[in-house]
Amino acid sequence: MREKTIRKAKHPPLYQSTPRSVVVPLHTYIHLERSSSVPLYKQISDQIREVILSGELGEGSRLPTERALAQELNVNRTTIMNAYNELAAEGLIEGHVGRGTVVKRTYFQAFEDEEAFVDDSPSWLFGLSSMDDLSEGPQARVLSDIASMGERENIISLASATPPPDMLPAELIQSIMSQRLAEGRQSALGYCPVEGLQSLRRALASHMRKRGVPVDFQHILVLSGSTQGIGLIGRFLLHPGDEVVVEVPTYLGAIQTFRALGARIIGIPVDKDGMRVDLLEAMLARRKPRLIYVLPTFQNPTGVVMSLERRKRLLALARRYQVPILEDDPYGEIYFENDVPQPLKALDTRGHVLYLSTCSKILAPGLRVAWLAAAEPLIEMLSLHKQVFDLNTNALGQWLVSEMLRQNVLSKHLETARALYHHKRDLMLDAIKRYWPVPVRIHVPDGGFHLWCHLPGCIRARALLRESIQEQVTFVLGEPFHVDGGGHQHIRLSFASASEDEIVEGIRRIGLAMQRILARHVPREEQERIERFPVV
Amino acid sequence: MREKTIRKAKHPPLYQSTPRSVVVPLHTYIHLERSSSVPLYKQISDQIREVILSGELGEGSRLPTERALAQELNVNRTTIMNAYNELAAEGLIEGHVGRGTVVKRTYFQAFEDEEAFVDDSPSWLFGLSSMDDLSEGPQARVLSDIASMGERENIISLASATPPPDMLPAELIQSIMSQRLAEGRQSALGYCPVEGLQSLRRALASHMRKRGVPVDFQHILVLSGSTQGIGLIGRFLLHPGDEVVVEVPTYLGAIQTFRALGARIIGIPVDKDGMRVDLLEAMLARRKPRLIYVLPTFQNPTGVVMSLERRKRLLALARRYQVPILEDDPYGEIYFENDVPQPLKALDTRGHVLYLSTCSKILAPGLRVAWLAAAEPLIEMLSLHKQVFDLNTNALGQWLVSEMLRQNVLSKHLETARALYHHKRDLMLDAIKRYWPVPVRIHVPDGGFHLWCHLPGCIRARALLRESIQEQVTFVLGEPFHVDGGGHQHIRLSFASASEDEIVEGIRRIGLAMQRILARHVPREEQERIERFPVV
Repeated sequence: MREKTIRKAKHPPLYQSTPRSVVVPLHTYIHLERSSSVPLYKQISDQIREVILSGELGEGSRLPTERALAQELNVNRTTIMNAYNELAAEGLIEGHVGRGTVVKRTYFQAFEDEEAFVDDSPSWLFGLSSMDDLSEGPQARVLSDIASMGERENIISLASATPPPDMLPAELIQSIMSQRLAEGRQSALGYCPVEGLQSLRRALASHMRKRGVPVDFQHILVLSGSTQGIGLIGRFLLHPGDEVVVEVPTYLGAIQTFRALGARIIGIPVDKDGMRVDLLEAMLARRKPRLIYVLPTFQNPTGVVMSLERRKRLLALARRYQVPILEDDPYGEIYFENDVPQPLKALDTRGHVLYLSTCSKILAPGLRVAWLAAAEPLIEMLSLHKQVFDLNTNALGQWLVSEMLRQNVLSKHLETARALYHHKRDLMLDAIKRYWPVPVRIHVPDGGFHLWCHLPGCIRARALLRESIQEQVTFVLGEPFHVDGGGHQHIRLSFASASEDEIVEGIRRIGLAMQRILARHVPREEQERIERFPVV
Repeated sequence: MREKTIRKAKHPPLYQSTPRSVVVPLHTYIHLERSSSVPLYKQISDQIREVILSGELGEGSRLPTERALAQELNVNRTTIMNAYNELAAEGLIEGHVGRGTVVKRTYFQAFEDEEAFVDDSPSWLFGLSSMDDLSEGPQARVLSDIASMGERENIISLASATPPPDMLPAELIQSIMSQRLAEGRQSALGYCPVEGLQSLRRALASHMRKRGVPVDFQHILVLSGSTQGIGLIGRFLLHPGDEVVVEVPTYLGAIQTFRALGARIIGIPVDKDGMRVDLLEAMLARRKPRLIYVLPTFQNPTGVVMSLERRKRLLALARRYQVPILEDDPYGEIYFENDVPQPLKALDTRGHVLYLSTCSKILAPGLRVAWLAAAEPLIEMLSLHKQVFDLNTNALGQWLVSEMLRQNVLSKHLETARALYHHKRDLMLDAIKRYWPVPVRIHVPDGGFHLWCHLPGCIRARALLRESIQEQVTFVLGEPFHVDGGGHQHIRLSFASASEDEIVEGIRRIGLAMQRILARHVPREEQERIERFPVV
């Protein structure tokens, strides 16, 4: 496994977006209707917004000057200025002295590092197989590589979004097994209905009602992991070429699955209050996506929570434009503060939200039990789809979760888990302050498993990963979470699965890796001077 | 669940094949090349064979008379006679005094019961949802209905192909859990590589080597049930409209999955020596199917074993025409005689066979662990597909199976299982002899879980199921195992999951149901006479 992964690293750069230095021939994307009642500047800004949100222009792409574009389109320069101003106000583009106007799409403001350490050689983390025709995109193996990294020794992994060994409820499972399996053998070891064990569906419905979502068992479909849910819903709602809206950045597994289904992915940026619903609105007015995929609570990877105001607006948009929302909520119950977040689904009175959650973060990924809560006819239809593809979810895992809910041991387990992850988050933040030689922007998340770090311009994420692997520590790059070619300056660190010692040591080692990169960045003359004075 | 299933029973007839009484306009299917070197009779028989094997003409469809077809095609009557003779020799059609020539496709010879008890009202077993656009066909819910029937009380189910409760290894699992789970928690409860736990892949490879198949861990892909394997391979090899060859009858879950993928299914009849490879050969010479799906050992539903000679010929055909074979082998280890069957894969030296098996029959369906053995590049590519759709198979089930194989407890479990199923098979056969009022043709299987019963013409399978449900006993109709509209006279009885008492009582009740049908068959005048003489 190890050798194969390493061997697979020899591959071309991951993202083939527009080169940064070339000015984008933006006029070729724009078609003006001079007889329209929509002002020309608005037509222009709308069309540029579309090109940016569709991902055709990556972060940092250079737009033509106002003068040049005005000339190409045969309009007044003020018209272009108004269009650019509107897009700048929305945070989609920005002007730079000496570099003109560039596309700015990432979570925090764009980064001015185009000249420094440009290095696109891929890391061993990215194994691109020979299956381009699968249209699964270049990051096809990221998730399985993250999974198999757990098997490597001596390497500290800050990559994997999994509970640590001591939070995997082995003793709980042993106790349930020894007390109840003989009696429950038919449910736990036999075939079960495709919708899931009746006892589990009832228990999950009750669990969701406690979180403010009024559902009953017939609204619950048990799934073999969230990925299956995304895949089933995607297959059911999307045809190849259909558009699906995701946050930028977003869960890379969802990007993979939507791509594998041949969907076109439109990215809407996330800021500290979640998805930029204002930009979504502008987009919905012009395009017809078939699905909106969001992680409203402790978003992966950013950790942000969508504000209540935006949640309401998002629901209103889904209603107005009749687009279903797939709410993915793996982390909603891993919160560190007292205000317990409710799912978006709790606000949904009309069945526009398909709610997806999983036992992988709150109990154990190895159970492979997740669930969907949605309107009953949809559950019935999706279970027909599910049956064709895996008949049913493993009954043993379902039965265990149902017993844990019935015996009310999950809530106690979660209390312990929240305290532990809260502590580990602080530990990681402290270690970063202590060991890293450069300032890094980090949104401090109130829940979830991750820190999303925006590196300074002198350190490219790929270069840092390469150096960090030398130091025997890994994490996930920001790029695979982006559908727009962005994320070059971002990394995701998981504080959940590593031990406390590993967290501190891992962060220290990344700090060493940063120092090595910075040292190489010292001008050549200075380096040579240093070399001429040997250290004694 | 129960009410819903019953409510769903109001649906149109399942199979809309050509009505039996109408003569098929066969000339419209035939195009003759008079300048070709292929004799005309051969062109005609080839094209009729295709129409029959493709399922366009169902069992019992009436062909035109030799004279009529000769006239339509403007050929000599002897030409048609030669063509019909060839097809009759292959067992595809047969002549009947007074009814002309009809299509004959089922396992045993066709049945002359077109006039008796024609009753196409669907049973409650078949719930056809409003999802015709899914192209999953009318039997979409058969499997989940079989699964949920296990939850109904008071009904004896001879439908479900699952081990009985006392063969579900609850104690074995409890013992492994209590001894080893704490130590194995990371493997058993964490994420695992998409290809499967390394320990399980090694153990399965070793297990297969003992059965004569020379594979190592890199040839093994762990799956979440066989259905997932059929789906993954189907998605990988088939595009909508592609043709796939199956046996007639065959496992209905495979038919469902191939249909859901938009494949065109070509059926090749099965006889007591397995698939009619001679007919396959004739078909491969003219069409280009992308996949051949077979159950060579204790075929589901017929229980037959493909002869060694046919296995060799099948492999030679796969090589010559470069069509991969998907060997589905859920029952290969449930044998009752001493000559232990080897998988077809054991004869495959060139990687033409993709071998699929499962723990559902030999251990427990609730573990949801199956596996594929195939060439390494294929395993790598399929695991990329799998990752997108369920990330990985539940680790807990994988870890349990791997522990059972490591501790060598599976072979002892299988010995017990074989003896039990052998005994139950005999018990069911004896009960049939004792309680059924009519002779039924049954192939006595040397392994597996089922008896495949060919009913006499006076009893239609649907009518028998309806009456049997009145007697609180269920089984599966023959129709959903057929891609050609056949199976109206067949039922599948499982002797695996019911208890000994239930088997005897279930067979007795089906016997009562048969008697009721026979009683109604008494001519009306006689019935009226009986009614006029009240019973005292």
